[in-house]
Amino acid sequence: MTYDNRAIGVFDSGVGGLTVVKQIIKKLPTENIIYFGDTARIPYGTKSEEIVRRFALEDSFFLLDKDVKMIVVACNTASAIAIPMLQEILEVPVIGVIQPGALAALSMSKKKRIGVIGTAATIRSNSYPKEIHKISPETQVIQQACPLFVPMVEEGWTDDDITYLIAKRYLNILKDNEVDSVILGCTHYPLLKAAIQKTMGSSVSLVDSGIETAGAVERNLKEKSIYAESTGLSKYHFYLSDMPYKFQDIAERFLERTIPHVETINFDNFLIEKGGKFWKKYQDLLKRIY
Amino acid sequence: MTYDNRAIGVFDSGVGGLTVVKQIIKKLPTENIIYFGDTARIPYGTKSEEIVRRFALEDSFFLLDKDVKMIVVACNTASAIAIPMLQEILEVPVIGVIQPGALAALSMSKKKRIGVIGTAATIRSNSYPKEIHKISPETQVIQQACPLFVPMVEEGWTDDDITYLIAKRYLNILKDNEVDSVILGCTHYPLLKAAIQKTMGSSVSLVDSGIETAGAVERNLKEKSIYAESTGLSKYHFYLSDMPYKFQDIAERFLERTIPHVETINFDNFLIEKGGKFWKKYQDLLKRIY
Repeated sequence: MTYDNRAIGVFDSGVGGLTVVKQIIKKLPTENIIYFGDTARIPYGTKSEEIVRRFALEDSFFLLDKDVKMIVVACNTASAIAIPMLQEILEVPVIGVIQPGALAALSMSKKKRIGVIGTAATIRSNSYPKEIHKISPETQVIQQACPLFVPMVEEGWTDDDITYLIAKRYLNILKDNEVDSVILGCTHYPLLKAAIQKTMGSSVSLVDSGIETAGAVERNLKEKSIYAESTGLSKYHFYLSDMPYKFQDIAERFLERTIPHVETINFDNFLIEKGGKFWKKYQDLLKRIY
Repeated sequence: MTYDNRAIGVFDSGVGGLTVVKQIIKKLPTENIIYFGDTARIPYGTKSEEIVRRFALEDSFFLLDKDVKMIVVACNTASAIAIPMLQEILEVPVIGVIQPGALAALSMSKKKRIGVIGTAATIRSNSYPKEIHKISPETQVIQQACPLFVPMVEEGWTDDDITYLIAKRYLNILKDNEVDSVILGCTHYPLLKAAIQKTMGSSVSLVDSGIETAGAVERNLKEKSIYAESTGLSKYHFYLSDMPYKFQDIAERFLERTIPHVETINFDNFLIEKGGKFWKKYQDLLKRIY
């Protein structure tokens, strides 16, 4: 058995991706993890496909510069828009949250009626329906962008009359279409699980992509035989491009543990110093794709 | 009489600053304007002071590279956090929205009880109270951050049962403290004017910083004698770091006219190519400030 003790790189537009990290730590406790949260440029979900692809590439450059063995795109928006490009040009395996979430929803939906909620960019990309229809073209997919869910979670309004009014507004179309499973297509949404479950009714299954993605990471490590050795001392490094106000409070809500060491990096300086080199390295491949 | 036909540079974290541009065009129709909206990194109001200062500097570098004669910081968050630094290091006049808004509120408030609403970063900075207390230390200032107002405006929910429920939640503290004027401390809030007025009651004055800022720009041009000549052909250039979905629709709501020419620029490339030069130029001054 060979091992690869290099870290798994995980990036997200902010701290929401810590929900995915939590699941990876739970399932794969021997792995080292390097996390990058692009808190300076968050959110991605309201922005154009072009900019999301560029940010996803730059975030990957940062992780590759730290010599990671795999990249996990914990952000739904970046997964929805940038995964094919990243998988085509990067030399390490790239895992996103869309495919694992879609597979889980398919296995849960008996009526073959699946709801998808996410950011505006994720929904516009149609990535979940495309992934679902590859396997089951006859499955009905009903999508709804929920732009107010993220700021509502960040405001801490997760169980409030306003929460339920907004949830009802967004989720009515899924109820009307009688979906029996709903993909929580944004890392913030698991924090609204209770409100979404209450609004949708108890018979509807909610799919948390974080859990499913950790499973995909495990399968990929196994397949490529790049597990880390068990040293009993897994290392977790957290890098952010901005230190959000009350970061530790927020992080603990997502990760459900304290973050011992977090470093704020000047991402503009990283781009000025090393961005040019990376962009140059991949320019021919990128030209071929676009 | 001497003239200066170089453009006035205006920047904002996104398109909200177009409300300020609208007022400048109305008051100063002979002036040329170059607008930069940092739509790739929007919003600023949820981020740290350090990153807002850095972004404000970089946005200014972009405008200075276009040879503007003045910089208007149309963004409340950037004004609240970065104005003193920008005024100290840049060689052109820098006008923000905080001081004009504070002065207008002071002249409107008979009870000397002023409310301020804005982003989390604007409110945390205490810039409005500081500006008000410089002139009138006895005036009571009651502040409230309203993080859901911006996404609500962007969702188009400006006159809805959810709008009023959220407005009531945020504005109750201002009502309880019996303020008689409220500063709309974010460029998106004028679009919620009707809902805010209805919630606060008709006797409360609302201060739109855009209008006040155009007045400050006019005074500054006059003082420095740097008006543009009347050519009958004022030029307006709009640059964005990302092209938002349905930009023309959004822009028209803010500017109340169509935008004939808008250019999306790759801001990372600008930083990689020219950022280093600008950072170097100001590094000694910046070191002295921090």
